[in-house]
Amino acid sequence: MKHTISVLAKNQFGVLARISGLFSARGFNIESLVVGETEKPEISRLTIEVLGDGKILEQVMKQLNKLIDVIKVFDLSNNSIKRELFLIKLNFVKENRSEIIELVNIFKAKILDVSKDSVIIEIVDEQKKIDSFIDLIKPFGIKEIARTGKLAIGIG
Amino acid sequence: MKHTISVLAKNQFGVLARISGLFSARGFNIESLVVGETEKPEISRLTIEVLGDGKILEQVMKQLNKLIDVIKVFDLSNNSIKRELFLIKLNFVKENRSEIIELVNIFKAKILDVSKDSVIIEIVDEQKKIDSFIDLIKPFGIKEIARTGKLAIGIG
Repeated sequence: MKHTISVLAKNQFGVLARISGLFSARGFNIESLVVGETEKPEISRLTIEVLGDGKILEQVMKQLNKLIDVIKVFDLSNNSIKRELFLIKLNFVKENRSEIIELVNIFKAKILDVSKDSVIIEIVDEQKKIDSFIDLIKPFGIKEIARTGKLAIGIG
Repeated sequence: MKHTISVLAKNQFGVLARISGLFSARGFNIESLVVGETEKPEISRLTIEVLGDGKILEQVMKQLNKLIDVIKVFDLSNNSIKRELFLIKLNFVKENRSEIIELVNIFKAKILDVSKDSVIIEIVDEQKKIDSFIDLIKPFGIKEIARTGKLAIGIG
């Protein structure tokens, strides 16, 4: 099962290696990882998406809580909003322009830049929606994709 | 100076520790780090924002290129589009509602969820714009911020 874990930790870079080490030592495959500052610059928030067994995850979370630089660990798998940012560079020739623009509008994506033969599109949404968008634009020729991985925040 | 480096690497988690270790060993402070899949699931793209000397950075990039699991290293400090995703939980009481909604509209941000006393706002933009938005909403009372760090893609 997929789990989304949020970790508040002191903004020291060794922390990242220690936290990720705990997951990999227990056989969790880290699907995505986002590290950014919080409202307090000295504290970072890591959002980690992992695939694995729920019971073992509970143990990993207990171990995470014991790390010196870790302040708090949340399970945001449920009761949360999960969003992801993608930047996609796509072939953009005369023949496909109107179709691409139509899809961009339907998915409320955004065109950030256009050059002679390519376009850079931004889409921010839940994974499912982004997956559908990618499936539909794939035939036009994807040149490059950059994505953030999942960012989560608790509801309420 | 701030630099934005993009690294294509094989999707193995030890890679992250090795790459981040190279930066910290040379005295670079990693400001943000984004790890996500690319168009090829076996390859990850790391977007790393660092503060430090440009000449030393060149050396770090050469060393990165020598790592077995690293496929390619780009400097995206210039000629790139840099975007960031923020989720912000804010106090949302009767007295401030209309002001918050007005700011959300001006900055083309988005309200994702509303509860009795809080609102979750999404904003995707360049850092400068997001900083202005945060400055303006701060007085209403920020409960929580989750951010991705900078995501970059080359232009053209």
